[in-house]
Amino acid sequence: MKAKLKTIEGSVVAPLGFRASGVFCDIKRLGTGKGSDKGQKRDLTLIVSDVPCSVAGMFTTNQICAAPVKVCVSRVAKGIAQAVVVNSGNANACTGKQGMKDALAMVRLTEKALGLKDGYALVGSTGRIGVAMPFDNVKAGIAAAAPLLGRSEAHAAHSVEAIMTSDTRPKQVAVELKLGGKTVRIGGMCKGAGMIQPGMSATGARPAALPAGLHATMLGFVTTDAAISAKALQAALRETVAHSFNRITVDGDMSTNDTVLVLANGLAGNAKITSAKHEDFAAFAAALQHVCLELAKMIVRDGEGVHRVVTVRVTGARSVADADAAARAVANSALVKTSWHGGDPNWGRIIDAIGYSAATVVESKVDIGYSAPGSRKILWSLQRGQPTKATFKQLCAAAAPKEFDLHIRLNLGKGEALMYAADLTEHYVEFNKGDVTDPTTLGG
Amino acid sequence: MKAKLKTIEGSVVAPLGFRASGVFCDIKRLGTGKGSDKGQKRDLTLIVSDVPCSVAGMFTTNQICAAPVKVCVSRVAKGIAQAVVVNSGNANACTGKQGMKDALAMVRLTEKALGLKDGYALVGSTGRIGVAMPFDNVKAGIAAAAPLLGRSEAHAAHSVEAIMTSDTRPKQVAVELKLGGKTVRIGGMCKGAGMIQPGMSATGARPAALPAGLHATMLGFVTTDAAISAKALQAALRETVAHSFNRITVDGDMSTNDTVLVLANGLAGNAKITSAKHEDFAAFAAALQHVCLELAKMIVRDGEGVHRVVTVRVTGARSVADADAAARAVANSALVKTSWHGGDPNWGRIIDAIGYSAATVVESKVDIGYSAPGSRKILWSLQRGQPTKATFKQLCAAAAPKEFDLHIRLNLGKGEALMYAADLTEHYVEFNKGDVTDPTTLGG
Repeated sequence: MKAKLKTIEGSVVAPLGFRASGVFCDIKRLGTGKGSDKGQKRDLTLIVSDVPCSVAGMFTTNQICAAPVKVCVSRVAKGIAQAVVVNSGNANACTGKQGMKDALAMVRLTEKALGLKDGYALVGSTGRIGVAMPFDNVKAGIAAAAPLLGRSEAHAAHSVEAIMTSDTRPKQVAVELKLGGKTVRIGGMCKGAGMIQPGMSATGARPAALPAGLHATMLGFVTTDAAISAKALQAALRETVAHSFNRITVDGDMSTNDTVLVLANGLAGNAKITSAKHEDFAAFAAALQHVCLELAKMIVRDGEGVHRVVTVRVTGARSVADADAAARAVANSALVKTSWHGGDPNWGRIIDAIGYSAATVVESKVDIGYSAPGSRKILWSLQRGQPTKATFKQLCAAAAPKEFDLHIRLNLGKGEALMYAADLTEHYVEFNKGDVTDPTTLGG
Repeated sequence: MKAKLKTIEGSVVAPLGFRASGVFCDIKRLGTGKGSDKGQKRDLTLIVSDVPCSVAGMFTTNQICAAPVKVCVSRVAKGIAQAVVVNSGNANACTGKQGMKDALAMVRLTEKALGLKDGYALVGSTGRIGVAMPFDNVKAGIAAAAPLLGRSEAHAAHSVEAIMTSDTRPKQVAVELKLGGKTVRIGGMCKGAGMIQPGMSATGARPAALPAGLHATMLGFVTTDAAISAKALQAALRETVAHSFNRITVDGDMSTNDTVLVLANGLAGNAKITSAKHEDFAAFAAALQHVCLELAKMIVRDGEGVHRVVTVRVTGARSVADADAAARAVANSALVKTSWHGGDPNWGRIIDAIGYSAATVVESKVDIGYSAPGSRKILWSLQRGQPTKATFKQLCAAAAPKEFDLHIRLNLGKGEALMYAADLTEHYVEFNKGDVTDPTTLGG
């Protein structure tokens, strides 16, 4: 049974007891202004709860892992936190011992500024890799952000602006639902547009069977006033991320900094969800899934240079791992992605990518078709390995919309997987080649 | 001991007893001309030896495998052949039973036109996937090409032109060497510019440990007048391809049609090389390796939209498989490739890609540096995971040339691998998105 969800305003400050702020402290050292009032994008966010929270997190499985991720992995393991400090403009990745000192100093300064217990602040960073943090700027940012905390729409807007890098749009959503007669709220914001193919686990450790090429910096921060234990929250988040953030790809590159954090402060007053077996767990988990999936899809739609979004749905694989491998091969193929950009259905490139994936494929069994998003009215281009009578014009019409679903049936078993994928455009290349004469254009 | 090689003219017709021709037979059905005299690019090639040859081949390991590849795999296994027919403009892939009939009809028509024994002709195709072969055109092409066979430079030029698709330049080379006092010649030509990351094996079967993402249509045809048994020739080719064609990537996409064939007719009169233990094997294999590596590098340099060529050299990995995984992750990363296009050394993206590869990596051990091609004078950007004192300007200068070497030392073991890689440019995207209103622009 799915709980009824109602979309509400307010992003991360929609749940009771959460405040946020976002300021400009010139982390990129542009040196061209002194605050967002001078037209500069904000670059440091604080989110804080009035009371300590249960916390859960999922982190990049990249072996090269940024200092803020390492700090969060060990703190989230304790299950309790109260605030998050986030900066954009510098990833604090590949910054060695100094990077770790800086990440720890960020959480300590935040705890001090907000009057929190030691260990209660978490940290996220995104931006260029391998550049030392401009720590004086960060320090000034935290000092400036702390007195500005609040719960208005402007506070939500400032905090989401400050985590954006190449994002062209803020990404935020909030919902409310009833749990045992009490109104519970979940709010979230995220950033990410390039270096996007998250493969997150609860500890940052790689699972034994790592799908080939799991690879954004994507940062996601979710708040809720639900009462839920850290263990139950982690269980809900693990399943949620597997079906949201870990199903997206913009460019196939997994970041050093991917992080999703959820803080639950219990102020809604619902009966505390203490495990996955609790009667309200499923409804809460479904709502969390809704929030994370909406955020994840926003990342793909706002991906660097993205013109078209394609949901790649693989069914009938021998295993889930096979379905995942086939879906990722298609979703990350340069030739498939450029054909999508051109509005070219090109199933030849699609079946080529399936064929070189790690999935078992039998040419004479493969079906490939196109539909509107979520529709079951599929126009098949290939059935059992043979071109159908669909005309090139019909297939082009099916691949023309800004969003469509690509259906791939391997007809070998019951394994299923999907990926939210994007086209590859000249704008992606132009943006990411940057301009070496102006290093501030060079992304992480 | 490496035999002395002398570069000579003539491509595949340089070795004694080989003739070739190339004609236009409108395989794309452009319908705009009747021959190359009307300015149309030729699209059908014949290569034939005066006498039967030992033959060896390597074929795509894509599970979706074109009909001509299937025909060659079974014929090459017999060790003897005398001619090759090749068309561009249509891959004859995903064309079902009719495709197999067409591929078999191509070899039979060739055998008939050239007066060869049944089973002595081989076939290669490249072009769009999933479109039925325009067989009347192919038939007319074979009939037109057979009487035009010859050994002049013009014959070499016409035959290489006819195998090109998105190639902007013909790719051919020939060498001679002395084996036991006799002069032996090896000549080769190839095509390939997109859908390039070959992973070929002798039977088209996937090896147990398939490097993740092995993925062009590249076609390579090599002729030699050396006397060598089919078995020894296959042994030399397997090793050669592992260090040449299987080390290149343009876009990470492995084709359904990748094929390399070598025909050895023995007319040089050297003492027949009967096994890998024969005293002349190493010298012959080194010469074959030289020819294949030169051809493979031409493919990367002429890759679709390619502006820069980067040789990614990974050393110190725990295993060769690890080195290969790290090199391919870097060579195929969209973010790394776009940074190369911009002349941006961006080692942050490079270490990010290494970190998500299947290779074991320890951040505090990684070295990353840049040099001129083949030079040992390396400018290190990162040593033991720490940025060096090299300035951004110095690093940009190292990444500015049209060709440079990228050195990655993992410092964990002795595994080594290299990849010949390319940048990702707006021109690649523009070319491959094609124009759906003019389907002749849409590549395989």
